[in-house]
Amino acid sequence: MTDHKLQQRAQSAIAECRRIAAMSEEPGRTTRRFLTPPVREVHAHLRSRMESLGMTVHTDAAGNLRGLWQPPGAPAKRLILGSHIDTVPNAGAFDGVLGVTLALEWLALAHKLKLPLAIEIIAFSEEEGVRFGVPFLGSRAVVGRFDPALLALKDADGTTLEQAVRDFGLDPSRIGDAALDADVLGFVEVHIEQGPVLESEELSIAAVTAIVGQSRLTLEFRGHANHSGTTPMQLRRDALAGAAELITAVESAARGTDGLIATVGKIEVEPNAANVIAGVARASLDVRHANDQARKSAVESLLAQAQTIAAKRRLSFQHTRQMDQPAVPMDEWLTAYLADAIAAAGLPAKHMTSGAGHDAMVMAGRVPSVMLFLRSPGGISHHPDETVREEDVEAALNVGLKFLQRLAADVG
Amino acid sequence: MTDHKLQQRAQSAIAECRRIAAMSEEPGRTTRRFLTPPVREVHAHLRSRMESLGMTVHTDAAGNLRGLWQPPGAPAKRLILGSHIDTVPNAGAFDGVLGVTLALEWLALAHKLKLPLAIEIIAFSEEEGVRFGVPFLGSRAVVGRFDPALLALKDADGTTLEQAVRDFGLDPSRIGDAALDADVLGFVEVHIEQGPVLESEELSIAAVTAIVGQSRLTLEFRGHANHSGTTPMQLRRDALAGAAELITAVESAARGTDGLIATVGKIEVEPNAANVIAGVARASLDVRHANDQARKSAVESLLAQAQTIAAKRRLSFQHTRQMDQPAVPMDEWLTAYLADAIAAAGLPAKHMTSGAGHDAMVMAGRVPSVMLFLRSPGGISHHPDETVREEDVEAALNVGLKFLQRLAADVG
Repeated sequence: MTDHKLQQRAQSAIAECRRIAAMSEEPGRTTRRFLTPPVREVHAHLRSRMESLGMTVHTDAAGNLRGLWQPPGAPAKRLILGSHIDTVPNAGAFDGVLGVTLALEWLALAHKLKLPLAIEIIAFSEEEGVRFGVPFLGSRAVVGRFDPALLALKDADGTTLEQAVRDFGLDPSRIGDAALDADVLGFVEVHIEQGPVLESEELSIAAVTAIVGQSRLTLEFRGHANHSGTTPMQLRRDALAGAAELITAVESAARGTDGLIATVGKIEVEPNAANVIAGVARASLDVRHANDQARKSAVESLLAQAQTIAAKRRLSFQHTRQMDQPAVPMDEWLTAYLADAIAAAGLPAKHMTSGAGHDAMVMAGRVPSVMLFLRSPGGISHHPDETVREEDVEAALNVGLKFLQRLAADVG
Repeated sequence: MTDHKLQQRAQSAIAECRRIAAMSEEPGRTTRRFLTPPVREVHAHLRSRMESLGMTVHTDAAGNLRGLWQPPGAPAKRLILGSHIDTVPNAGAFDGVLGVTLALEWLALAHKLKLPLAIEIIAFSEEEGVRFGVPFLGSRAVVGRFDPALLALKDADGTTLEQAVRDFGLDPSRIGDAALDADVLGFVEVHIEQGPVLESEELSIAAVTAIVGQSRLTLEFRGHANHSGTTPMQLRRDALAGAAELITAVESAARGTDGLIATVGKIEVEPNAANVIAGVARASLDVRHANDQARKSAVESLLAQAQTIAAKRRLSFQHTRQMDQPAVPMDEWLTAYLADAIAAAGLPAKHMTSGAGHDAMVMAGRVPSVMLFLRSPGGISHHPDETVREEDVEAALNVGLKFLQRLAADVG
């Protein structure tokens, strides 16, 4: 495969993403929630591309579009490629969709090279959690972990998930049939990084080693609301000053602990008036680490610091835990394959963790899974300015080519 | 005057405050805004008490109830006593009103002792700024600084201030006539402290030396809103972390500078979501000091610190100044009189500044003014739990007695 041809394929994959971005619920911007009308357009377009490559295509009852390529003489165990086609409101063109258009290009390469490898491409119906408030609906069905209780969820218009599935022409009672059989080698998801790491290191791509675990808490300091003019400093019980001290401690802890990221992104103060000392301050705490023990230790240490700050300031402190999600390591065997492919493509070895959830996180619960990240220019995502560099898409194609060649040679 | 009689007068002044608290716009709680119907009740009640003491009573065109006691043979120059009778919503019984009921008790003492001293009592119509959003409407008129443009202000129901004055049976074109003539010795306002200082020092009363000056600003840090999972600590531009660092610096500066009080009571963050690094944080800054130069230096130093914090964190910083109100010193001659009276009453000498504005602040622009603070149990004010201790009210009566006796002797 010449570089020239890969460059053409990269341009084509990018153009495809831009074309699909126009299939939207809203004119002039990209919003495509789970099973809304533009999803039909995307399905029709992708189905036609899959069929022209010789794939057998169907839509499962969870709305995932699934194409199977089973070349004569290939082993029954197949590789799965894909990502999601739903978007956040006013989205960019590449989050999720690039993983589907690149899956098609990888398949086209395998097809062209007559690799003896069965491949299924899945365009997952739902990952963002926008329409029904629950993410990963598509991949949950694929791994056989779609809880039928979810069918009762309602969207903002009061339509149930069950009705949305029916309205799309699918049978909600058949969602269980979407679950994978045992004939799967593994799952590869190509996705934009949605962060600034690769850009800051001037790298095109990285193999993802794990999706970090996440704790989310609400921290509440209570003091006493008093007049800001008549209450001397030493007699105050200022809840916001306590929260501010903790915010600084959270940042210090994360800066001083390898691999730890911790954020206070939300704060609410009562009464929140310029001339009244804050009586209550409630702050969010988001802590992530690829190592669950490191994450839990960091949370406990920050809670202890909050207690110390509260005691020193005569505040009361309490917290509620909202999320405690373990890290999901990617498959070692497949990651080693991907790393070899990156080296074979002449690219620097780069491993990184993913700070956000992806379909691969859910898929990893059932089949060996791995992710390939592409640089996000400006670290921008979930925004119309989200983009990709052609050279990086070309790098991802080159890596895909090497990956498929090696995998076909080893399992064929 | 026996202690026993002063104790009875103290009980009576407290009972009067409780009685007046029942004259309210709302059943079951005390809310009495400028020129609302319960103000008529208060006026009728106070007028009857003033008249029974031999005073000549009228309501000026700004709604201030004014009683004049001019005993035969007294010099023409009169002492003015008083405070305000409007309240915040869901108020306590003593803020303002105690200064009026104690003025009546002081007058009764002067009357009983036949002191040759002319006294005017003013029950100011408006101090809190609740109904029309502008405070000190009553005292502004008394000092001849009521801007007629204020008549166009509207309350929440769309009623103009001009119409409110008319609806109360007064003539807005005569507000200029409310201004004091030159025959005034000075103004004394007795008021609850509305803060915790006297309670923390186990003192009943204090002479106020100044109303502190006040600066109010809005500070805005702007960074970049990014995904809290995918953005490493060292690549963040976190506006809330910058604001938190400044809040800590504001508190440290105030704790480390004698007489300085500084507060961040309000903060607003965008987008204010647990999983997004804050792109914008806007905080209020309230800085007070009895010395204007000290206050201005503190503000400039905090702005410089904010700039340093912003630069270090690659944030932009800007501020807007909303208020820059100079300190108002109380009159030295009258304060010395009050201090002598406190000593003569056998009470510890205590001078303090007022962190909040009062009618005396406005009156001081025209006539020598002084304030006497009473301990606020729990530092509580603007709340139904606001109260006073009987022994402190008795102390204020004792101080008043000594003050009036000395003043009458010196100016008579």
